[in-house]
Amino acid sequence: MRQLILAADLGATKILTAVLDSSGRILIQEKSPTPYDQEPVKVLEQICASLLGLQQQVGQEGDRVMGAAAAVPGPLSFPAAVMLDSPNLGWKEVPVRDIMTEGLGMPVIVEKDTNMAALGAYYFGSTPFSPNLIYITVSTGVGGGLILDGRLYRGQAGGAGEIGHMVVERNGPVCGCGRRGCLEAVAAGRVLARRVEQMRAGGWGADMDLGPGPWGARELGEAARRGDRAALAVVRETTQFLGQAIANLVNLFNPQLVVLGGSVAQGWRDLISSSLDEQVRSLAFPLNARDLRIEFTDLGEAIGLLGCLAAVLHKERGPGIN
Amino acid sequence: MRQLILAADLGATKILTAVLDSSGRILIQEKSPTPYDQEPVKVLEQICASLLGLQQQVGQEGDRVMGAAAAVPGPLSFPAAVMLDSPNLGWKEVPVRDIMTEGLGMPVIVEKDTNMAALGAYYFGSTPFSPNLIYITVSTGVGGGLILDGRLYRGQAGGAGEIGHMVVERNGPVCGCGRRGCLEAVAAGRVLARRVEQMRAGGWGADMDLGPGPWGARELGEAARRGDRAALAVVRETTQFLGQAIANLVNLFNPQLVVLGGSVAQGWRDLISSSLDEQVRSLAFPLNARDLRIEFTDLGEAIGLLGCLAAVLHKERGPGIN
Repeated sequence: MRQLILAADLGATKILTAVLDSSGRILIQEKSPTPYDQEPVKVLEQICASLLGLQQQVGQEGDRVMGAAAAVPGPLSFPAAVMLDSPNLGWKEVPVRDIMTEGLGMPVIVEKDTNMAALGAYYFGSTPFSPNLIYITVSTGVGGGLILDGRLYRGQAGGAGEIGHMVVERNGPVCGCGRRGCLEAVAAGRVLARRVEQMRAGGWGADMDLGPGPWGARELGEAARRGDRAALAVVRETTQFLGQAIANLVNLFNPQLVVLGGSVAQGWRDLISSSLDEQVRSLAFPLNARDLRIEFTDLGEAIGLLGCLAAVLHKERGPGIN
Repeated sequence: MRQLILAADLGATKILTAVLDSSGRILIQEKSPTPYDQEPVKVLEQICASLLGLQQQVGQEGDRVMGAAAAVPGPLSFPAAVMLDSPNLGWKEVPVRDIMTEGLGMPVIVEKDTNMAALGAYYFGSTPFSPNLIYITVSTGVGGGLILDGRLYRGQAGGAGEIGHMVVERNGPVCGCGRRGCLEAVAAGRVLARRVEQMRAGGWGADMDLGPGPWGARELGEAARRGDRAALAVVRETTQFLGQAIANLVNLFNPQLVVLGGSVAQGWRDLISSSLDEQVRSLAFPLNARDLRIEFTDLGEAIGLLGCLAAVLHKERGPGIN
């Protein structure tokens, strides 16, 4: 008898829905762009319809559905799993769990996307079950999830892990959150184009052969690999900001493992991994860096779905899982 | 029958030894300056002798000693409780627990001083049992202790909670740890005198009536209360650095409670508490700041001793207590 899990990952650009078995195998998956012209309730209902459709396609006699889970952007108020005011989606006060539980006809575990990814890395990453693990996504934005003493750590209301909103440059550029100099304001994918412009204005990159833009992480990475000075400078500076932020986290959390994911981190892995590792080790306390590993996840975009699976399989594990 | 606890707090300037009962009452206490001309083993043996002497003085027929605990400066390697390389004491590789266990003839719980203070605040503070509590000491240095989901959080090797070594000013002044711009390098008691000099050099404080120095937190606080501009500027800037650091922590940990202790924080409480509160709330995420309390501890210098008591009383509580 197969045990099936329904999993959904709602991102700012795409929606993934899938049916997995309890071993972590994705039996069937669907990907679609995130619609911005529809009501949140409609979008969530479509996710539910997709999940039920996939279940029908892949289902066999005797299958049992163990549960369902969804990863969604924060801030997500815990324990009610209400999406408060998502700057990425433009959603406000959306009771995601209630809507999806109704749509699927079964209880749904809803968790912040970065927390689900942290669970995915903890259970299915290349160094699984590291009791203290910090997951960092560097993508359009910068976010994080914390596994502490073997459990997902959410803080009092679900707001923990906002790694992107640690100030790394005092009086630096204004962030989407309103503060200045947050990690997200200097190292996220969405600020790369502006930073290239600044480099060019500062006299870097006269030899630049980037097109007219807008440039994303991929274009910048390619230019850096070709030796473009402005692109290299942006990559180097981003690595410095990330290194400083990760060293702060290592000094605060003393983790065994830091896992990097997200399109910018993964796309630049060959460009940044060794210098990032070096910087963190030079900036962190010797005791804290002693047995530290810094990894780039190999789970790709499935990390959130695998986190959903883990959340269903391990929901009995106390405050870690709602 | 009274239950007695032997408790010691070894600081960079003074040593406190005490016998407490299980309700948290300090029955007898001794205070002495920390000797710098003696071997670590000797100092620890004197602490043990003091504790046994106090127990003899206060002991009555039928008393039972429940246990002993000591708060000592970090970095302290967990679980062996070896003090690795204390910059404050100048000690290296000192197996504190082994030495004290031998000296007292009973098992001794040894914990980093800031962690013990966090336990003291958690069990005996004015808002006890806040599941997620960050203790911050601003004294000669800046340190921290973390209670997360109701348990002391140490990280993999005991290095967690190094709040003083979060970078708050990129490329700022060099810190004792070798990095630049750590919170400790801009907000600790030991850098106040240098900062006053800088203010004066920058044209502030022409009206300054501080003596020739060196100025500590007390002298600066008094000058600020008299309206001295340089002193006020240093206090204001310190508050800004602390506010930025605490907002970072609130975004990372989403705690119910932040507790401030240490001679600088407590000495300046009237000068900084309202603006610190305001700044943290303006910089932290709304969800994270919603039910946040920021308190200055009322436990004074007993906070570490009360943490020792808590460590003995609650040592069965899993990974929180060694």
